[in-house]
Amino acid sequence: MAVKSGYRRALDIRRGVVDMTHGSGGRATADLIRELFAKHFSNDYLNEGHDGAVMPPMTNPVAVSCDAHVVKPLFFPGGDIGSLAVCGTVNDVAVCGAKPLYIAATFILEEGFPLADLDRIVGSMAEAAREAGVLVVTGDTKVVEKGHGDGIYITTTGIGEKLTEHSISGRAARPGDRILVSGTMGDHGTAILSQRENMSFGTTIESDSAPLNRMVEAILEAAPNTHVLRDPTRGGLVTTLNEIAVQSSVGMLLDESKIPVRPEVAAACEFLGLDPLYVANEGKLIVIVPENEVEAALAAMRSDPYGTNAAEIGVVTEENAGRVEMTTLMGGRRNVDWLEGEQLPRIC
Amino acid sequence: MAVKSGYRRALDIRRGVVDMTHGSGGRATADLIRELFAKHFSNDYLNEGHDGAVMPPMTNPVAVSCDAHVVKPLFFPGGDIGSLAVCGTVNDVAVCGAKPLYIAATFILEEGFPLADLDRIVGSMAEAAREAGVLVVTGDTKVVEKGHGDGIYITTTGIGEKLTEHSISGRAARPGDRILVSGTMGDHGTAILSQRENMSFGTTIESDSAPLNRMVEAILEAAPNTHVLRDPTRGGLVTTLNEIAVQSSVGMLLDESKIPVRPEVAAACEFLGLDPLYVANEGKLIVIVPENEVEAALAAMRSDPYGTNAAEIGVVTEENAGRVEMTTLMGGRRNVDWLEGEQLPRIC
Repeated sequence: MAVKSGYRRALDIRRGVVDMTHGSGGRATADLIRELFAKHFSNDYLNEGHDGAVMPPMTNPVAVSCDAHVVKPLFFPGGDIGSLAVCGTVNDVAVCGAKPLYIAATFILEEGFPLADLDRIVGSMAEAAREAGVLVVTGDTKVVEKGHGDGIYITTTGIGEKLTEHSISGRAARPGDRILVSGTMGDHGTAILSQRENMSFGTTIESDSAPLNRMVEAILEAAPNTHVLRDPTRGGLVTTLNEIAVQSSVGMLLDESKIPVRPEVAAACEFLGLDPLYVANEGKLIVIVPENEVEAALAAMRSDPYGTNAAEIGVVTEENAGRVEMTTLMGGRRNVDWLEGEQLPRIC
Repeated sequence: MAVKSGYRRALDIRRGVVDMTHGSGGRATADLIRELFAKHFSNDYLNEGHDGAVMPPMTNPVAVSCDAHVVKPLFFPGGDIGSLAVCGTVNDVAVCGAKPLYIAATFILEEGFPLADLDRIVGSMAEAAREAGVLVVTGDTKVVEKGHGDGIYITTTGIGEKLTEHSISGRAARPGDRILVSGTMGDHGTAILSQRENMSFGTTIESDSAPLNRMVEAILEAAPNTHVLRDPTRGGLVTTLNEIAVQSSVGMLLDESKIPVRPEVAAACEFLGLDPLYVANEGKLIVIVPENEVEAALAAMRSDPYGTNAAEIGVVTEENAGRVEMTTLMGGRRNVDWLEGEQLPRIC
């Protein structure tokens, strides 16, 4: 390893592990920040080296969202806890109708966690942040004793600026509006569970984890009267739609035949006893728009690499306020209720 | 317990515990948010019920800071993990020379954690937020299996607006500047360790955990040319001053006799083999100002309830750049270096 004269690396990233000193706030913490975090996240705000970051004024309304990430396993097909932590929060800010700009990240590390894994995870975060066009501007690291964590928990808080004048909100769905999704349902949760249970279904099921902020910008440009944007994560499509139905005091009628689900995900879910409409997504949008903006919104979604399978799946109704119904493949109609209890723990 | 007609509480806060369903994103998560979090944190932004919160534009530069909190024990004299999580982040934003406005909070809960403890902790957060004048505007909850946490880990991210035109930063200390502290050193860490080790020193040592944003406002009004503001948390006074000395490429000379330390903290530290100047504070400021603003800054600090013991403790020097020296009680002069290794794990 090349070492600059007069400077010796303090971390052995290839073979070293996290120890309690890395969370002490002393020299070992400074080494970890300099040789690992700053290497990946370098930007003017972070490099200031203060406990906090100072950024320019934000002249539009400010959107903030945060998520703790405890996904198990840490690495899975299509991503890892690092990319997930950035994409999840980028998407939560984007669905406020906002452009995400900054991320604050905290790390709770378990003593003994390999520095090589941490380096890979932080590298994934940086790559996802570059793709989304956001900067990781400040952070914090704590270390807990072996046996008091699961290697790494990551919390991310995203900050962005509103793109629209009007409120994009779960309270804004109106009877007659159409319900769109940006692609196939259930990919992320099914990928995690297959990985966790060591199941193989002939083909590897990949998480859909992806930053959706550029798709949101395109939708809001094409369909400026968009009423609701949501990312159907934990609890999946149906739980998120139930939340919106309650918040907007409207009913919803879905057409099961229109809801895109990958065949391999459907097969895996059947095997696992799951319903893909209740399984978490990490790279999909629910978009609720007035009927006259359906085509524009769909075209905007389909022009994005993460929206090629976008589809209209249902309609907002005046009747059955607070409830979601679905016309099934069999032609019947049934109530599709909230997720009860725990379906998939530690999915994000 | 009074129950509104037609509404039955889903949570038994007095006797219930956290279970995996509370992190699923389904109905149990919604119950926990409504009956526990929203009860304490109610405000217009949070009540919108979106995944994120939308706030007005911020016309001054924006300051952001975040901290993960893993303190053990969760409850200690002078505070708990909840008040600490709010005060710590409020202070990190304030020392950017900013007025903290909003908090985003994530909770990683361990299966089996008593809801009564969670309710008490969230209540403490709300009380600290009220005192500081900040709003908890958005949050997230995850649950991990029993044995994979320590009851509760809390991450808070604070967002505020700059109060000054110029940069308040660890890079801004200048030779000739004076070094002030707002009160006694080492109280928080000593309180935690005494509690953890079940030690009693005749009197209960209390954490100094407190929101310092109002004191910061007073200082910046009285001493507008303040160069550096810091809260000496992990690693204590000496580690923080070493960081500033490196960042500003200056030396520092402290006068040990001027540094306020409570006698009971000094006694406890001696017993525990600690140096209070390396022990974490959670309600104290380091303030570095030009000589002609010393009296104004000290007066501003002393007029605040958390600054009654404010003192001038040293001077910034041109020589010994990057190092901190101290004239000891014995009259000698010694180098006081960074904290090496782990002094006090899980202190915040």
